Amino acid sequence: MARPEVRITHAEEFSAAHRLHAPQLSDAENKALYGPCNTVHGHNYRVEVTVTGPVDPVTGMVMNLTELMRIMREEIWDHVDHQHLNETVPFLKGILPTAENLAIVFWQRVHAQRERLGSARLFRVRVVESRDNFVDYFGDLR
Amino acid sequence: MARPEVRITHAEEFSAAHRLHAPQLSDAENKALYGPCNTVHGHNYRVEVTVTGPVDPVTGMVMNLTELMRIMREEIWDHVDHQHLNETVPFLKGILPTAENLAIVFWQRVHAQRERLGSARLFRVRVVESRDNFVDYFGDLR
Amino acid sequence: MARPEVRITHAEEFSAAHRLHAPQLSDAENKALYGPCNTVHGHNYRVEVTVTGPVDPVTGMVMNLTELMRIMREEIWDHVDHQHLNETVPFLKGILPTAENLAIVFWQRVHAQRERLGSARLFRVRVVESRDNFVDYFGDLR
Amino acid sequence: MARPEVRITHAEEFSAAHRLHAPQLSDAENKALYGPCNTVHGHNYRVEVTVTGPVDPVTGMVMNLTELMRIMREEIWDHVDHQHLNETVPFLKGILPTAENLAIVFWQRVHAQRERLGSARLFRVRVVESRDNFVDYFGDLR
Amino acid sequence: MARPEVRITHAEEFSAAHRLHAPQLSDAENKALYGPCNTVHGHNYRVEVTVTGPVDPVTGMVMNLTELMRIMREEIWDHVDHQHLNETVPFLKGILPTAENLAIVFWQRVHAQRERLGSARLFRVRVVESRDNFVDYFGDLR
Amino acid sequence: MARPEVRITHAEEFSAAHRLHAPQLSDAENKALYGPCNTVHGHNYRVEVTVTGPVDPVTGMVMNLTELMRIMREEIWDHVDHQHLNETVPFLKGILPTAENLAIVFWQRVHAQRERLGSARLFRVRVVESRDNFVDYFGDLR
Repeated sequence: MARPEVRITHAEEFSAAHRLHAPQLSDAENKALYGPCNTVHGHNYRVEVTVTGPVDPVTGMVMNLTELMRIMREEIWDHVDHQHLNETVPFLKGILPTAENLAIVFWQRVHAQRERLGSARLFRVRVVESRDNFVDYFGDLR
Repeated sequence: MARPEVRITHAEEFSAAHRLHAPQLSDAENKALYGPCNTVHGHNYRVEVTVTGPVDPVTGMVMNLTELMRIMREEIWDHVDHQHLNETVPFLKGILPTAENLAIVFWQRVHAQRERLGSARLFRVRVVESRDNFVDYFGDLR
Repeated sequence: MARPEVRITHAEEFSAAHRLHAPQLSDAENKALYGPCNTVHGHNYRVEVTVTGPVDPVTGMVMNLTELMRIMREEIWDHVDHQHLNETVPFLKGILPTAENLAIVFWQRVHAQRERLGSARLFRVRVVESRDNFVDYFGDLR
Repeated sequence: MARPEVRITHAEEFSAAHRLHAPQLSDAENKALYGPCNTVHGHNYRVEVTVTGPVDPVTGMVMNLTELMRIMREEIWDHVDHQHLNETVPFLKGILPTAENLAIVFWQRVHAQRERLGSARLFRVRVVESRDNFVDYFGDLR
Repeated sequence: MARPEVRITHAEEFSAAHRLHAPQLSDAENKALYGPCNTVHGHNYRVEVTVTGPVDPVTGMVMNLTELMRIMREEIWDHVDHQHLNETVPFLKGILPTAENLAIVFWQRVHAQRERLGSARLFRVRVVESRDNFVDYFGDLR
Repeated sequence: MARPEVRITHAEEFSAAHRLHAPQLSDAENKALYGPCNTVHGHNYRVEVTVTGPVDPVTGMVMNLTELMRIMREEIWDHVDHQHLNETVPFLKGILPTAENLAIVFWQRVHAQRERLGSARLFRVRVVESRDNFVDYFGDLR
């Protein structure tokens, strides 16, 4: 009989500065496009990583939550907390730090560790930028 | 190469009164069906609108969040905040203002502005009525 | 030795409609004064009642939280949940249902049950009207 | 014309103790696997049950939310609130009370009441164990 | 008879960047003192302003909440939202933007508008920097 | 001139089991007094510690928040997270783990470290037991 599949989600929060400024556009275009986000500001970001997989009949878990937390800290939190996302994060060099791009990059970094997920696979990365704004990325799964 | 697809969500909150009373039913049937919701009461509603689309490689965005916010304010918030949903909202005339119907109507109003969504498309409308109750509508996408 | 004094707080939430309209003022003055709150709308209200008193050395409690909850339900919740605060709540008849006045009236109703508080005394009533607005009333204690 | 399909969600919270200890593993293995979760501790759990179905054109509802609440209380809350999930809940006897397994068992119990859901069907059970950890189970729907 | 005194609170949220670096200290001392906060990062800040005063018997209000909101936007929000608190806010020039100092400066700015508070007086300014850290300033009232 | 005094608050969350059972009372009396809390259950607890003091003109801080966090982890969190408060916490031996008593004991433990608070002094310990229940202890300050 097939094992039931469950999705598990762990969240981490970090504080960082960023600004939105596209190098291909003029200053005036940037100002018009991003408005107040064109200048340096910051957020308390919340990152949720969801993995999905069969529940192990012995452990009752999809994967060890502590390992998921460790991956998120090593691959994401340790690099972005209390940083300036445009300037001090090597893996974001040359990437416009919109919430959309952060979700994609965070996905790629967790996905690169997929062997540590056991029989689970990465399902979704959510980046919450403020209480009324968030984005979701699902990789190629959908 | 295909551009990555991301979902972005913006939320707005509004305060409104409503009552649930189906005109096709008798007063006794309405009382039995809706219980305390049959009399005029109210909520702080939260509306989340999610759109999905490819991330623009220049702007790093699915669409301008400010434009999404503007659509939500012009099409929803300006009409329902501090209103009596059964009586003072023209686009709700004749519609029973359950959370389900609100989600459907809000969907239709945002969908009517779909040209303003650029390459994104409307994905979901969530209406949160209280801390323990909410509904989701996905249009015809699912 | 004096027993340590601790404050305990219990919260209840209710959904209600109201409008702000002062009978001593003209319609135009009301409109100017209350703006959008002059028309019927509603909220998910949160009421917090705080009592303070010595901790009983046998029970480890200031008072039985279940009794505090019962007082709040019997004196407040049962009367206001799913009601129109201007029209259907007998104890609010003739009272303008601003958050300030609600806090005062809720205080009076809990205070009238003060014998049920044992050695504790009513300290504060907080009424949260929306996520960014709340009021506190402390009776004559301060 | 097809009736629009909407998902509705109701949540309940309960407080319970549990420990994670797999009987097939040695004490040392359990300690290594579950870490601090291997000893008795507890949580304020939040359970969200989502059902999906067509909106009834007369009532404007997918199903009566009061009935969904009743099912959740009778089948879940009444049995687990203020309990020790490893010891005092008959329907959890022999089941390791991980969040994953709780979601599956809660699903089965609500699903067993599916005739009470009317034309709606169970879609998702979410169990939130703490502010940064939750799991989702979708049965066989996905 | 004395009018009952009630405290009312309004909150606003803003997103900003800052860094903690004391000019009187060496770089090494700054690093040791502030740790990760010594580099540029950011937060979603929440500012709560509480005023206290007698409830007007005609309006049922301590003061018009809309006016309090306007003061907060004109004196605080408009100047700090989407800004770099160390660099782009004139009234913070030369002030180390710790949460403590922000609360004091925000107090001073609201207090300077005290004539607009009517018979109410400023009671407290709270600055919430992240979900687990906040500060309160009460001026000279205590 | 006097330095402005500010209160700063840091919060930590922990998960623990407990039961309320007074040894001086009979089983029947315990059952009647504590109801469902008489059996082993658990919570996600939130502990807020507030200290108050003058703002240092050089650092802009009342005290180093990192030091406050360290005190809370060393004196509270490390001992109670994922524990059974009636059984496995040495400093709670013989103490009925009501929220009131937890607040008092946590106060005493932080107070014993008061030299590490610099020129600040302990002001309040809040213990939040569930979303609708919390207690506050102020020591002898009030």
